[in-house]
Amino acid sequence: MIGKDIEKLIKIISKLPSLGPRSSRRIVLHLLKKKDSSMQPLIEALSSISQNIKTCEICGNYDTASPCSICSSDKKLSDILCVVQDVSDLWAMEKVSSFNGRYHVLGGVLSALDGVAPEDLNIENLLYRIKKEGINEVILALPATVDGQITAHYLLSKLKEVNVNVTTLAQGIPMGAELDYMDEGTLQLAFSSRKAL
Amino acid sequence: MIGKDIEKLIKIISKLPSLGPRSSRRIVLHLLKKKDSSMQPLIEALSSISQNIKTCEICGNYDTASPCSICSSDKKLSDILCVVQDVSDLWAMEKVSSFNGRYHVLGGVLSALDGVAPEDLNIENLLYRIKKEGINEVILALPATVDGQITAHYLLSKLKEVNVNVTTLAQGIPMGAELDYMDEGTLQLAFSSRKAL
Repeated sequence: MIGKDIEKLIKIISKLPSLGPRSSRRIVLHLLKKKDSSMQPLIEALSSISQNIKTCEICGNYDTASPCSICSSDKKLSDILCVVQDVSDLWAMEKVSSFNGRYHVLGGVLSALDGVAPEDLNIENLLYRIKKEGINEVILALPATVDGQITAHYLLSKLKEVNVNVTTLAQGIPMGAELDYMDEGTLQLAFSSRKAL
Repeated sequence: MIGKDIEKLIKIISKLPSLGPRSSRRIVLHLLKKKDSSMQPLIEALSSISQNIKTCEICGNYDTASPCSICSSDKKLSDILCVVQDVSDLWAMEKVSSFNGRYHVLGGVLSALDGVAPEDLNIENLLYRIKKEGINEVILALPATVDGQITAHYLLSKLKEVNVNVTTLAQGIPMGAELDYMDEGTLQLAFSSRKAL
């Protein structure tokens, strides 16, 4: 018999990804105990985001401004585009700063099972950007799944029409991996794509 | 280069218990994608709790009313009190409905290391409640740690003065446990407190 309002908050938080009822209770207790230093800043940050969040009209990233801070930055290379499935992939790539170009969020991958067709993805806009922004290279950073690779092939056929260099991320053994834990597909791929030293 | 406001929200959420930067990013993306069905209800629930939350003047529980819903319920036994360290313990006990009395939250346990003295705990009020509410039995449900047991002993000496039955939770082998994974202390305790069948 925990108070109704508190139960409701626990339920809402427990439905967020990577949380459950137990961790949600711990979080709510933490928020209640540190009302000023933890709950208030959280409410303010959430409210501010909720009011100001926009989807960037150019690349599809989330930001409080549109065009987003990446598209409007003059420190990013302007002739290279990285095509990703989702905003989460874009954020993951921005964490490691090994790429200094701009992005294009497809909003999904082609999928016969889930009924995702080319017109459901942000592809028209990609072709338009390539022409308008004078893009020289498009990096396809799509997931290494069947659907991801089918999408990459489809995009490749479309991109050939607009005369642009298309590359894709290297596939192989991930860093720090033990070879005997690797699946056969990855090992085969790593052999066939072996590099001269 | 994720937007500043979004980074701020990710940072705040990543400091909550059981969360880190990666799960926090996942949660923020989920909130951004499901703004109406997930972010708005969360903001409303948080704001409502933040404005209305109170510490129950009788037992120390958190609720939107004081006395809390447990202290003001007429379905709870009125002559039996369960003394717990923290509100989290109270919530855990309310989850399993094996106890139908009221609670008293100490707000900590005695600790020489952390400098917690008897006057820092909600003990005076406990003695006052026992007299005023005509309490018949006090169950000490304190942690099975050294500090918890010292606190239980201290409370026992205090409670002897006010003529009330004092009990404590049974200790022994937890349900579903393998004996060879149990520590020596627990096994010793389980032997010395063995029960006739």
